[in-house]
Formats: sequence, structure tokens, C-alpha cells
Amino acid sequence: MGGKVMNQVKALVFDVFGTVVDWRSGVAREFAAFLPAHGRTDLDPFALADSWRRLYQPGMEECRSGRRPFTRLDVLHRESLEKVLAEQGITGASEGDLDHLNRAWHRLDPWPDVLLGLTRLSRKFFLAPLSNGNIALLANMGKRACLPWDAILGAETVLAYKPQPEAYLRTAELLAMKPAEVCLVAAHNSDLRAARAAGLSTAFVPRPSEHGPGQSIDLTAEDPWDCVATSFVDLAARLGCD
Amino acid sequence: MGGKVMNQVKALVFDVFGTVVDWRSGVAREFAAFLPAHGRTDLDPFALADSWRRLYQPGMEECRSGRRPFTRLDVLHRESLEKVLAEQGITGASEGDLDHLNRAWHRLDPWPDVLLGLTRLSRKFFLAPLSNGNIALLANMGKRACLPWDAILGAETVLAYKPQPEAYLRTAELLAMKPAEVCLVAAHNSDLRAARAAGLSTAFVPRPSEHGPGQSIDLTAEDPWDCVATSFVDLAARLGCD
Repeated sequence: MGGKVMNQVKALVFDVFGTVVDWRSGVAREFAAFLPAHGRTDLDPFALADSWRRLYQPGMEECRSGRRPFTRLDVLHRESLEKVLAEQGITGASEGDLDHLNRAWHRLDPWPDVLLGLTRLSRKFFLAPLSNGNIALLANMGKRACLPWDAILGAETVLAYKPQPEAYLRTAELLAMKPAEVCLVAAHNSDLRAARAAGLSTAFVPRPSEHGPGQSIDLTAEDPWDCVATSFVDLAARLGCD
Repeated sequence: MGGKVMNQVKALVFDVFGTVVDWRSGVAREFAAFLPAHGRTDLDPFALADSWRRLYQPGMEECRSGRRPFTRLDVLHRESLEKVLAEQGITGASEGDLDHLNRAWHRLDPWPDVLLGLTRLSRKFFLAPLSNGNIALLANMGKRACLPWDAILGAETVLAYKPQPEAYLRTAELLAMKPAEVCLVAAHNSDLRAARAAGLSTAFVPRPSEHGPGQSIDLTAEDPWDCVATSFVDLAARLGCD
């Protein structure tokens, strides 16, 4: 079982990019469909996915720091996509093509254990994403992937990007729960550290191929998280939902 | 079918109290459970439900007018509940009992046609509540009633109470849709008038017993709404989801 701390948990909230869905393969798949029309099959779609993702934290940091008002992730993604394409000298993509490619993040697929695990967890817990993705992104992804979310929460709902403490605290408050009654499930130790600092319960599920074959970070639980599972199905079993 | 205007609709957003759920019977059921413990079986649970609901618009109006910052409906409901009980001389209810009764609005049941209609509509449309209820209220209700929402939207997400135009416009913007691509489904002509003024598409489904046997308002469509259906199942059929 999940232990004493987990007994008080009523809601599980999930990091999404990396934890629920395989963003790298999904974005690479969409680049692979985009490149031939632009005569650039010489480029590696996975390298482009990594380049796009590298601009993710710097984009949000502008908002976290207050240098820029809160701006939803679809907008930040579009700005960073244009940088990535410009770096490769890809110009002349139509607005429709750019918008479609930008929404690659709305069409990511879950890891193979997610649907069964979430469906089992849904019997006992309130489930929602707590992601830096915006509402339309997370809701479109959830509908396409049939994720059994009870609500779509995250940065745009609370107007704060993780790991700002407000992102975790306001989410618990919206749910009318104490922070410890809410457990963040994440594949990233840094996200869990920020959640724990805000008083949330914590569960770690490793995603050792999130960053591809050479991944060196987040392979193991770096702190004594309240629950450590090998998959969402294992998490469900540990929390009494099997 | 639903006509030309409805062909462009991608998302259906729903008024909830009255349109999706039968608030009057649900709240009366909870008063019926509450009153014996307080020795007041002389009171009519339906009359108490009506009294509580009469304080709904005045509570929100304080926020709409700017006299009070946006305050979630659970808080407004609690304040109005205390007034209703005080009027009847009911004192001494425990905090736990009051909180439980206040959450009657989280436990309302849908009208009998709702689950089949929504489930059919869900195949083709993005579905979300657009209610003055707060996120926890709507999400708890949705989970308990198995409503197939794709997101939980409404006043607390956009920080504006219907019929303020921002409540409709910001919801469309959150969905990254044009207002006309979003259709409000409601049993209340006034809600639809405000939605149409903001550019949304409109669908009317009458709920002739929302206010009990003597209902005199909202029995028919008072304006030429883009779609008029007799139930959610009929709405699904009219929108090509049968």
C-alpha cells in the first residue's frame, strides 16, 4: 500500500509532459510529417523535438519572473517553434501548417500503462492534470487519448507556472482540499520537491525513456517520496485500486 | 439537423443548474435529510430549496457589480444557507452538518435524458459546463453523476459570473475557438440572450419542472435560437449524433 501519508489523499494531480504522455516521440512524429513538404528530410525529427523542448523552460521563466504577464503555453510554444524553424532556415510554412504543427502538443499519446492505471485510480480518487499546459491543450489531449480526468487543472487555471508554489497551492484550494490531501504524480524529482515544499503529497513514477535512449536524469527517486511506483498500473495497485 | 449555424459548432457548453441537473429536487432531498435532526419536520424541504435559490442571483450580483471581488459559489451558497436557516430559527447546526448541506449542490442528479444525450454528443463535440458553479462543485458533480465532460469550465475559470459577457467570451478564448464555434445549451432564455449577444451559438432545451409543478417561465423558446430540442437525446439527434 502507499503508506500513512497516502491514506489521506483524495485527489491525484499529474504532471503531464513526460509523466502521462511521451512528448518526444509525439513531437518527432509530427516533425517527420512536416519536414518532407519543406524539403528537409535531412533533419532528425527527434533532434528538432529536443530543440523545441529546450526552449520550454526559458519561455515560462519570462512569466515566472514577472518580466512578462502570464501567457498560455500554446503562445510560448508557437514563439519557440518559430525560433527552431528559423535556426534551421525553414521559412515559408503557411499559417495553417504552423498552427497544426504547434498543436502537436495537443495530440501526444500516453505511455502504454496510463489508460489502465488512470481508469483504475479513477474509482477511488479525483484525477486531474496539474501541468504547465494550457486548458485547451490538456483538454484536447485528454479527449483524444480518452484520459478519465475529472477536471482540467494546471497553470492556466491558477495563472502560475510550476514550480511556483502558487501553482500547487491554488490547485489544492480550488479543489477545496488541504494540500496534503492532494498528491502530485510526476516523473520529475524537481517537480515533486516543489510540490512537497508546498505541502502536497508526492508520488514518483520514472519515465526512463522520456528524453530518449541516453537519458541520465530522473531515473530514480532522489528523495523519499510518499509513494514510488514503476508505472501507473503499479501506482493503482499500491493505492488499493487493483 | 441543427441548421447552418450549428454546422460550425465545435464545442457545446452547458448551463448546469436546471439545464443539466434538477437542483430543486436534489436540494430538497438534502433538506429532508437535515431537518429531522433539528426537530423541524414541519418545514417543507422544497420551500427551503426555493428560498435558498432565491438568494443565488443577489449573491452573484455583488460580484458582478464590483462591490465585492469575485467569490466562488460555494462561499456564496454558504452565506445564503446561513440566512435561510436563520430565517427559520434553525441554530446550532454543527460546522460539519452545514458544510455537508452546503455541498448538496455538488451532489445534484441529472435529468433522465442527460447521460445518454451527453454521451452521444461527446463523440462529435467538445463538452464542458459553462456554469456559475465553482470548479470543485462542477467537478464533484460530474464525477458523481458520470457526466462525460472534456473540461470543467465556468465562472471560476474565467472569474466572471454569467450573464456578464466576459463569462462567454473568455470561455471561447480559453478553448481557442471563435465565439460562434461554441454553442451554449441552456433551459433559460435569458442565459441564451446573453450568450448570443457575445457571439455564441445557442441551443434551448426546456426544463418545464425545474421550478416545480407551477412553473411559468422558460417553458418555450422566446427567441429563434439556433437549435431547439426537447431533451439532450433529441439535441444529439438534431446535431447528427444518433
